[in-house]
Formats: sequence, structure tokens, C-alpha cells
Amino acid sequence: MPSKTMKAVVKPEQAPGMTLREVPVPSFGPRDALIKVRATSICGTDLHIYKWDEWARKRINPPIVVGHEFCGHVVAIGRDVTQVREGDFVSAESHIVCGDCAQCRTGNGHICQNTKIIGVDRDGCWAEYIAMPAHNLWVNAPDMPAEIACMLENFGNAVHTAFSTDLTARKVLITGCGPVGLMTVAVAKAAGARSIYATDISPYRLNLASRMGATHALNVGEVKVVDFIREDTDGEGVDVLLEMSGASSAIDQGFSALRDGGEASLLGVAPGVIGFDINSHIIFKGATVRGIFGRKLWDTWYRMRGLLNSGAVDLSPLVTHRFTLDQWKDAVQVMNSGASGKVVMFVDGEEGNEGK
Amino acid sequence: MPSKTMKAVVKPEQAPGMTLREVPVPSFGPRDALIKVRATSICGTDLHIYKWDEWARKRINPPIVVGHEFCGHVVAIGRDVTQVREGDFVSAESHIVCGDCAQCRTGNGHICQNTKIIGVDRDGCWAEYIAMPAHNLWVNAPDMPAEIACMLENFGNAVHTAFSTDLTARKVLITGCGPVGLMTVAVAKAAGARSIYATDISPYRLNLASRMGATHALNVGEVKVVDFIREDTDGEGVDVLLEMSGASSAIDQGFSALRDGGEASLLGVAPGVIGFDINSHIIFKGATVRGIFGRKLWDTWYRMRGLLNSGAVDLSPLVTHRFTLDQWKDAVQVMNSGASGKVVMFVDGEEGNEGK
Amino acid sequence: MPSKTMKAVVKPEQAPGMTLREVPVPSFGPRDALIKVRATSICGTDLHIYKWDEWARKRINPPIVVGHEFCGHVVAIGRDVTQVREGDFVSAESHIVCGDCAQCRTGNGHICQNTKIIGVDRDGCWAEYIAMPAHNLWVNAPDMPAEIACMLENFGNAVHTAFSTDLTARKVLITGCGPVGLMTVAVAKAAGARSIYATDISPYRLNLASRMGATHALNVGEVKVVDFIREDTDGEGVDVLLEMSGASSAIDQGFSALRDGGEASLLGVAPGVIGFDINSHIIFKGATVRGIFGRKLWDTWYRMRGLLNSGAVDLSPLVTHRFTLDQWKDAVQVMNSGASGKVVMFVDGEEGNEGK
Amino acid sequence: MPSKTMKAVVKPEQAPGMTLREVPVPSFGPRDALIKVRATSICGTDLHIYKWDEWARKRINPPIVVGHEFCGHVVAIGRDVTQVREGDFVSAESHIVCGDCAQCRTGNGHICQNTKIIGVDRDGCWAEYIAMPAHNLWVNAPDMPAEIACMLENFGNAVHTAFSTDLTARKVLITGCGPVGLMTVAVAKAAGARSIYATDISPYRLNLASRMGATHALNVGEVKVVDFIREDTDGEGVDVLLEMSGASSAIDQGFSALRDGGEASLLGVAPGVIGFDINSHIIFKGATVRGIFGRKLWDTWYRMRGLLNSGAVDLSPLVTHRFTLDQWKDAVQVMNSGASGKVVMFVDGEEGNEGK
Repeated sequence: MPSKTMKAVVKPEQAPGMTLREVPVPSFGPRDALIKVRATSICGTDLHIYKWDEWARKRINPPIVVGHEFCGHVVAIGRDVTQVREGDFVSAESHIVCGDCAQCRTGNGHICQNTKIIGVDRDGCWAEYIAMPAHNLWVNAPDMPAEIACMLENFGNAVHTAFSTDLTARKVLITGCGPVGLMTVAVAKAAGARSIYATDISPYRLNLASRMGATHALNVGEVKVVDFIREDTDGEGVDVLLEMSGASSAIDQGFSALRDGGEASLLGVAPGVIGFDINSHIIFKGATVRGIFGRKLWDTWYRMRGLLNSGAVDLSPLVTHRFTLDQWKDAVQVMNSGASGKVVMFVDGEEGNEGK
Repeated sequence: MPSKTMKAVVKPEQAPGMTLREVPVPSFGPRDALIKVRATSICGTDLHIYKWDEWARKRINPPIVVGHEFCGHVVAIGRDVTQVREGDFVSAESHIVCGDCAQCRTGNGHICQNTKIIGVDRDGCWAEYIAMPAHNLWVNAPDMPAEIACMLENFGNAVHTAFSTDLTARKVLITGCGPVGLMTVAVAKAAGARSIYATDISPYRLNLASRMGATHALNVGEVKVVDFIREDTDGEGVDVLLEMSGASSAIDQGFSALRDGGEASLLGVAPGVIGFDINSHIIFKGATVRGIFGRKLWDTWYRMRGLLNSGAVDLSPLVTHRFTLDQWKDAVQVMNSGASGKVVMFVDGEEGNEGK
Repeated sequence: MPSKTMKAVVKPEQAPGMTLREVPVPSFGPRDALIKVRATSICGTDLHIYKWDEWARKRINPPIVVGHEFCGHVVAIGRDVTQVREGDFVSAESHIVCGDCAQCRTGNGHICQNTKIIGVDRDGCWAEYIAMPAHNLWVNAPDMPAEIACMLENFGNAVHTAFSTDLTARKVLITGCGPVGLMTVAVAKAAGARSIYATDISPYRLNLASRMGATHALNVGEVKVVDFIREDTDGEGVDVLLEMSGASSAIDQGFSALRDGGEASLLGVAPGVIGFDINSHIIFKGATVRGIFGRKLWDTWYRMRGLLNSGAVDLSPLVTHRFTLDQWKDAVQVMNSGASGKVVMFVDGEEGNEGK
Repeated sequence: MPSKTMKAVVKPEQAPGMTLREVPVPSFGPRDALIKVRATSICGTDLHIYKWDEWARKRINPPIVVGHEFCGHVVAIGRDVTQVREGDFVSAESHIVCGDCAQCRTGNGHICQNTKIIGVDRDGCWAEYIAMPAHNLWVNAPDMPAEIACMLENFGNAVHTAFSTDLTARKVLITGCGPVGLMTVAVAKAAGARSIYATDISPYRLNLASRMGATHALNVGEVKVVDFIREDTDGEGVDVLLEMSGASSAIDQGFSALRDGGEASLLGVAPGVIGFDINSHIIFKGATVRGIFGRKLWDTWYRMRGLLNSGAVDLSPLVTHRFTLDQWKDAVQVMNSGASGKVVMFVDGEEGNEGK
């Protein structure tokens, strides 16, 4: 059993910033497990909380341990737990859903209105330990690299988006090459997409997009994306748009490059109400548009397992920076720079040494 | 065989208005049929052409015989025609598609980019005769009332929209109670919807909505629609939104009343680019949105046949006004007033006498 | 709180028959509820257990309280229960699933391999009280008639089958008019099926089929079903087959009457391996065939709620016989005769008095 | 323009065998094209016709030019042809459908009951020239190898089967490794299947299966397939069964290895009525089963284009034998031996020289 206190990165008060401090090791209930965190990665959401932007001010109630992407070993379980055992190497679904609402009861737990997210609505995983419902854990093979296992939650966003439509033999446009967009490129490649157009404004990320399998990595600052795609597809446009940026211009370009009868899945969060040409983009086009949120519980996790076990997807090129938890400030800074793939922090300090 | 000239309502020049004049009976090719028109009905598109609005100025190339909803008897067929015979009582699909493009070849002819619409891109049916490809004709039972048979094209918009999602046992919101909205109410009722909320600003149309099967006919000028629906559904919202108005406010209300994980099908054409909350309305909601255009070729027509043959849908209450073709001005005026359901013109003058 | 013992119909030993005896009121765990049973109905499965046929001998482990269809009031709940409260009027999903297997985790709990069925794998509901997981309960409106509420589990089989395909405006063949088949007729009618062909060998049941909405109730002993349907549909055949009988001949007839490209959903359990023309019935026909088991958890229950709340389905004509629990022998005998719809037993003895 | 006669392999009379003879170059109608055949491949159907088995005796009406898989250049077109031009390098859909029946009109032309197949119901392509409707032609890139282009019709069977369900990240069992089975292995690989189990009795074909991407090529004479798969999948079974053999034992094994809730697509034609455990294989399993026939018109062809253009599928390892048309007897013999992939005959004699 662990000691009574632990290191954790905490949002201490209603203001920008975070702090590393000693906090109590969390207690756990009869259906919970206590996990010793091995690695944790950084998501855009964590940056919002760090910067204390409008969204964070409305949603976060400090003090709270931050972080929601991690992997680790189960070190203790509550008396009613049957899903995991001590010693299991696990990743975690960060959305704790109620299990009893109409959404949860009909296979749509990913949009449960009672969802509590670790590191957002309750204590998270940028810490030595986290306690959470055993039902939320996913047991990995013991030899899965920690830097991959901690990314699964985020990878699930990509997999949920990619599997919302059929990509095999199709022309696909992925707008936005942040980590989720890059993982989506990898899934589209694995699914046998005929061609993958990936767009961004960052040469660093576009370079990663090519490595992950994009047929065409297009810098929207240099290329007229819609013209390029129309010409490259003999005027047909793409069959599928996967929107991962939330940028109003990308949304508009994406729909403009989509063929009639095409399908669009939207994950990127837009900056509020935007001007949208619902006639050209949806109605006259006979398009199908899907909003994507979280991960399908748990279909997405089984799909991830399949993609990784077969080797069809290799996420390792995406881990561009490794730190220890003590180096959390440097890690956040790198992530904030935009010149990174996934930034991983190793909690025990042995595996992350890049910052040194 | 018919005489050489015939009466027809014509858009004569690039200006508001139309005129009834004598024009040649159309010639027809080897794969066409010549149909003696029995009844024809008025659509909102016809009003746009009459008023010569921006859309009409861009699309219409006068002179042209107008009208695209009709029924009649086949009086002659080209030498290669196998689908119909002289004497058949037919309705017509108004969209003449190419049959060879990728859309046509994959069961999506309704979004063929080479579509020619009768009464819009070529001569239409407000006339004694019309010639068109036999492949576009649908043979009706000889005893189907002409005032129903001439509405099938328009009914197809409603059926295409309604069948784009599953309505049985579901809560459905239909925004906009013009003729297509009203027919959609009838289809939702026939499909066993649990409840049907219909909205409009016209008491005349809301009264018709109730007759067609709406559980709640809500005047948006008097009722806070979103609040009403949320309260009436224990906060759940509707399962399905069928948007038939094109009004920006109705689109916004409709999505606001839609439950998480719900489905929206959009037929109403919006007034250009609109402000749209893509986050709340689609992404966070995990919604599925479909653009609807025309009729599925020909799945929609088979569905229509099923609904009408079984008596599950009765369209007769929707025919609120009957005229002769000679009375076309009065007919257009009534349609333009908003205080009507479908307005039908009988070409032979025997059945339409309401204006007299 | 209830007394310590209660009346219950028990399968006492590995032999034909059952017996009414006094047994302990069941205890319940922290996540369970104790329900005072108000009404319970009889299913074919109960007859198998009574007769002690091959299936029963393999599956049932006496002594066990039988019965799995019921409704009642919650009289006590375990300390962790949040889904129901004392006094709630509930029906119950009879399949207690594990919640943790791959099927349960991906929205397919109805085929969980760890399923325990009340009255089959553990004590059931032909008793004054039953204890079971609160998660398995469905709260009804307090004024729903008990004889309807006790049928919901069985109605769910019909709804699951009917909603496995789209019935609106379609021609539907339902083979087998036992209670589930009859309820399926009602759902098909509510869903706006164009025509409903129902087959059976019992005039009693065919008469009920007509009452529930069958367009054609066909006695397979008198009518050549395939010929009749082909002729009645201009040679087209039916769009959908819903097989509820398990009879080899009905399966063969059903597929023969199915049109090319049609859809078949199979619920009726066949008598072991049967001769089946996989070429004509599935492959050359391009058919889609679905196996149906249990109820979709919990999508089927929400669909039921919609169908009953709107009045689209009225199950009351199906309750043909009412007894008290003390009269269980008479009730079983009537059910066994084939000349019945649903047979209901009222536990408190006030509502069921038909046998007297 | 071609000369007046040409070489063709003909089924001359109602008896086993075929013959190479001089026949008239076919005439063509206003909507037809005349194609100079470049390469043609052999299908199992051709062997049935050669051997004059029961199916052939019922279906074939000699004399007839045989063969239905080919590619070639358009050398002349009828006056109404718009789809192709002289010089186009084309493959052909061998099923000539009516275009006017309910199936054709609703996107299900692949099960049109009026289908005429070249080389079966009318003259085929084992000849120097063939005339057929221009609508049935598919234009290839000029540099596509002829030995690939002639296989597209057959490849379409594999693509239609594979795309009838979702294979990405899934465990797939393909029973039967004839040419279509082998191509299906390649498609499953391209679609990112997690694992591909392929079964056959021929070591030659199993070796090809491994080359095309099978994870496990299992000889049913040596391995207990169901046990192997259950063990290899931790008892879960496969997600998808693609049945390509038609063997009763393979069908039974395939369904036994299929997980609950799995999907099966059946292409292989069984030897008449077979014993089938509809309970275990479909009903209790909650399985979905699809019959596959021909190719989806024309969705399958667009999918093929995508798979081949991106390089996701490479069919070239499947061409194991090359002959000239003059060597047709040797070609048929090799195909009949079972120790082959696809056997191609080059009509102009320059490319096929393996037999010499």
C-alpha cells in the first residue's frame, strides 16, 4: 500500500497557473480501484485550465488535481471490484458516466449528461496515484509501452471520429493536425483510405502528418486547399471530412471540398456561433454530418485494441517529448508552443529525461 | 394524337409575371412519352419564378413553360419506350438525371449534378401537354384522384425527409407547416411517431397540421417552443427534428429542442449563410444531421406507393383550393397568400371550378 | 415490510410438474430491490419447464421459483440503489446481465454470455415477492393496468424483432401468431406497414391477429401462403419476414415469400438442425437475416414506452384469460391449450377471477 | 473497323466441351459499344459450362460464345453512346440489367430479375471482339495491366462481399481460398482487419492466402479450425465470417467460430439444401447474415477503383498462369486442377506465352 501523501500537479485557485504540491493519496470506495500512475500525457484541455480561459472559469472548481490521460498499475481495489486485479497495467476512460440515464441505457454513454471527467470535474491523474471506478479501467498487455498506454484516451477521440463513417477505399480530408488529427491520419491509413488530405498551418505538424500516412499534407497558408483537392480528385471532392481543428475557416473549406452525398464528422470545437452556409454545405449537397464527443463506451476501446494489436496503427512517432512529472512546467510550455506531437510525463522519473 | 398547339402558362421574359399563351405541342424523342396533363399543382418554386427573385434570375432562362407537379395520361410514346403505354395514368419525377455520373451510378441520383428540372431548366407542365423521358414517369392506379396524383412529386419531398430517419415510437419536431411540412406530419403519424410537435406562424396552417395528425401544433409567435417541448418531454427533448421552414430562428429552435444523440433532417432552404452554433447543436450533442434534396430515385416513390395504397396517409385534406388552368392567376394569388394547403389547377376545366 | 414467508409456484424436483408452496421471502443485496408482485403472465418457456422437456432438463436446476414476466410495487431497496424508490410501480427486464463483458460494454447486453434469467437460472416471479437488481427494473406510470405492465418483458421480444428492420410503408409477413407474434402484428400496424400477412394453424389465434391489425390472417392448413402472397403482391413478395414460430415449414414458406433484397428477422426457435436452402433463401436473394434474442438493453424498453404512451399500440385485446396465483394449474392448462392470447395471474387475488 | 469474322471459344451444343471457331464479329445497337478484347480470365462458372453439369444444362442455350471476365479497347460505339469513346481501355460489368424494375430503380440492380450475363445468357468474351451496352463498361487508366483489368469483374465479387460489413480493426474468417476468397483476403488486409483467418484444403491456395495477407492460413484437413480460432481469440471468436466456399462443412465451421453478435456474409453457393443449425448459428447468437450476389451497381466498382489506385490492394500475385486464347484448352485444364490463382488468356497472343 502507498504512503499517505503524494506529489500532484494541482490547480490551486481561480487564477492562471498550476502548482506541484504534496496532497493526500486518494481514498477509494467499494467499486473503485487505486492506480499508481506510470505515465500521463497533456491535452489541449489541460492548457485551457492552465491559462484559466473562459471555458475553464465556467467549468473548473479549484482546488483540483489536473490531468485526464494516463496509464498505471492497479495497487488496490475496493471490495466489490471484479473487473481488474492488483498488478493489472491499465489505461482509463476519463469520462465517468452514470450508467442509469436514457443515454447510458441505450449505448450512448459518451453523451451521458451526468458525466464527470477526471482532472476537470474531480481530481485527475497528474499525480502519483489516482482512484477511480474500476468499471472505467481498460486492461492493457503488460508489455505495452507506457508512453503509448497513456495516450489511449486521446487516441479514442481519433478512433471514435474515424469509425463514425467508412473510410476504406475513400478519399478523406482531415482538417487540423494536432495530436488527435495526427492519430486520425494514422487510423485512416490503417483503414485503407484511398487518399488522405491533411491540413494545418504548422509545418512541424504537417511533417508529422506525412509520417503518420497523409497522402497530401497541405499548409493552408500556402495552398488553396479546396482548389487543390478538387483538381487532385478530377473535380469530385473528398468522400469524407473529418474536422479536428474547430477553426471556422477550416470548417468552411472542409465542407467546400466535400463531394455531394459526402459525410462529415466534426470533433473540433468552434469558437462559439459561426457563420455557416447550411444550404451549400449540407442541404443541396445531401450531406450527412455527425457530431463527435468523447469515445463510444466501449466500442471505441475495442476498436483501439484491434488497431494496435495488429500493428495497423503505430502511435510511437507521435510521442515527440518526454518529461518527468517534476518537469511539468517545461512540458506544458512545449505543448503550448505548437511544435510538438504528444508530450508525455513519466511519474516515476526514470523514463522521462528529455528535458534534462 | 393532339393538335399542333396548346395552352400553356409561360415565363416569357426576364421580368416578374407569367402569361397564358398558345405554344406548340412539344415534340418527343425515341425514349420520351407525351402526356396529356390532367391536373397540376403549385409549389413555392413557382412563386419564386413568378416574382422573379434573385434565385430565379440566376437559374431561369425564359421563355419557358413553368410548372413541375402534375399528373396525366400518356397519349404517345417514342419507339424505344418500354416503361409506359398509351393510356397509362402517370405522375412524374420532375428531376431528369443523367444516369451516368458517379451519383447516379451509386443510387444517389437525387443529387446528380447534371439534373434538369421540368419547369425550371426546360419546359414544364402548366400546359395541356408535356413531353419527357418515359423513365421519369410513375404509373398510378387508374382511379387515383387527379388532385392527389399531381401532388406526388411534392409528397416525395416529405417522404424522403421522413424516411431519412426512423420515426416509429419517437418524439418528432416538424418546423414549418407549408404543404411539405404538412405532408411530413401525415407521414410521421402513419409511421407511429410517439408525438408530433409542428410549428409555424400561420394559424391556418397550424389548423391543417392538427388535421394531418400533429399532437401539438405550436404557433411560434405565441409559444416558447423550446420551453414547451422540454417541459412536455420531461426535459428529454425530441428524438428527431425535421426542418421544413428554412427560417434561421426555426433551425435554432429545432436544434435546441433536439435531445443529445438526436437526428435532424434539413429540407428547408435557409436565406444564405446563417449564424449557427455548431458546438451546442451538433458536436456536444453527438447529433446526426442530414441534408435532404429531392426524392430518392426511386426508393421514395415506392415508399409513397406503400403509404397511399394502405391508407396510412390520406393527402386529401391538403387540397384546399381547386382552379382551372385558365384561372392560373387566381391560383397563384391564393398560393401566395399563405392561407392555403395545396392549390391544384385542372387542365381540362371540368374538375376545377372553385374560382368561379 | 413483508412477512417472512410467501406463496410461490415452485419447480420442486427434476420431473414434470410444479407445486404451490410456502417459501421464504427473498433477501436482497445493496443494489437490489424487493418487489411485491401484482400480476404475472405465462410464457411458452414456463410450459417447457412444467413439462420438463429436453431443454428444461439441461437448463433448470430445481428447486426454483418459476416465472419471468411480472409487474409489482417496490417495497424495499438496498442501500446503494438509486434507480427506483419504494412505491414505484415497475416491470422488469428478466435477463440479468453482467455489465462487464465485451457484449455488455458495446451495447449488446441482450447477448451477454453471463446472462441469468429469473425463473430459469434463479428464482422467479410466480410468487408474492421477488428480489432482483434495481438496474433491471423499469418504472411505469402508476395507472398502467397491471395486466399490461406484466406483459412488457414479452412485448419486448416483439418490439425488438419489429424494430430490427424498417416496417413503415412495407409489406410484412409474420409467421406464427402466438402471443409474441400477435404483439408483433400490433407493432407492424403502428409502424405504418403497408400490409401485414399473419400465418398460423389456429383459427383462434388468426382471429386475434385480425383484431391486432393483420391485413390478411392466413391459415396455413387452408391457404397456400406463398402463392397467396405472390399473387396479392403482383409477384413481388413481401419486403420483410418476421419469423415467430420456429416451425421448419414456416421458415421455408417465409423465405419463399420474401422478395429479393428483402430482410428477415428470426425469433422463433427451430427444432434443432433443419434443412435449409441457403442458396435460394439468402444468397441469390441478396437477403439480410437477423437473429433476435431477448430485448435490446434498453433501447427496446424506450421504444415500448413510446408505442404504449402514444396509444399507437393497444395490447389489451391480447389478455384473454385472467386467474389468481392460486389458480396457477388452470392458467397453465389454458395456456397449453393454444386457445389463448396472454394468460395473466393476479397475485393478490382481487383482479383475477375468471377461472371461478 | 474490324474484319467480319473473328476467333471465339464457343459452347457449340448441349454436351460437355467447347471449341475454338471462326464466328461473325458481333453487330451492335445504338447504345452499345464494340470492344476488341485484350485479355480474358477464367471463372468457376466457365468450368461448369465446359463440363456441362446440371446447372449448365438448365441455364445455357448453345451455341454461345463463352466467357464473362475481360478487358479491351473500345473500337466502335453506337450513335447514342455517351459513356465511352473509341480508344478507351475498359473492363465490363458482366451483368446486363434492365434498369426499369423495382430492384434497378432502388439501387439494387445487382439482384435485377431480368439480368442477362455475358457468356451465360448471351455471347461472351472469349473472343476477339464483344459488343455490349456502353452503360456496362468501366473506363480504366490506359496503363493498367491487362491481366489486372480483366479480373475486375471477379474482384468485384470479393469487394462486394468485403464491404458488406465493416472489417477495420476486426477479426475476420474467410472460408475458401479460391480466387475470390484470395482477393477478399487482400481487401480485408487493406481495410485494416485486426486478424485474417483463411481456410482451405489446398496447400497451394493457402500459400497464396498468406501472400495476400492472411494472418493465419489454416488447412481444414489438418487443423481443427473452430478450436484454433477460439483459442487464438481468447474464446471470443471472429467478428466477421466471409463464406466463399459453399461447402456445408465450411459454413458450419464458420458460424461456429463467429462470435455472438457477429456478422456473416455468404457468397459461396452451397450444394442445394443443407442441414443448418439456425438456432445456434443465427438466433441465439444475434447474428446478422447477408447474402451476396454479383457486384453493387456501381458502388462496388468505385470501391475497387479506390483500392487499386491507392495501392492498398495489389492483385498481381494472383495471376499465376498466362495463356493465349488459342491455348484455351490448357488454360481450362490448369484452372480445373485447383493448383492456380487466376488464369488469364491474352487474345492478341503477344502477352500470354506461358503455355509454350
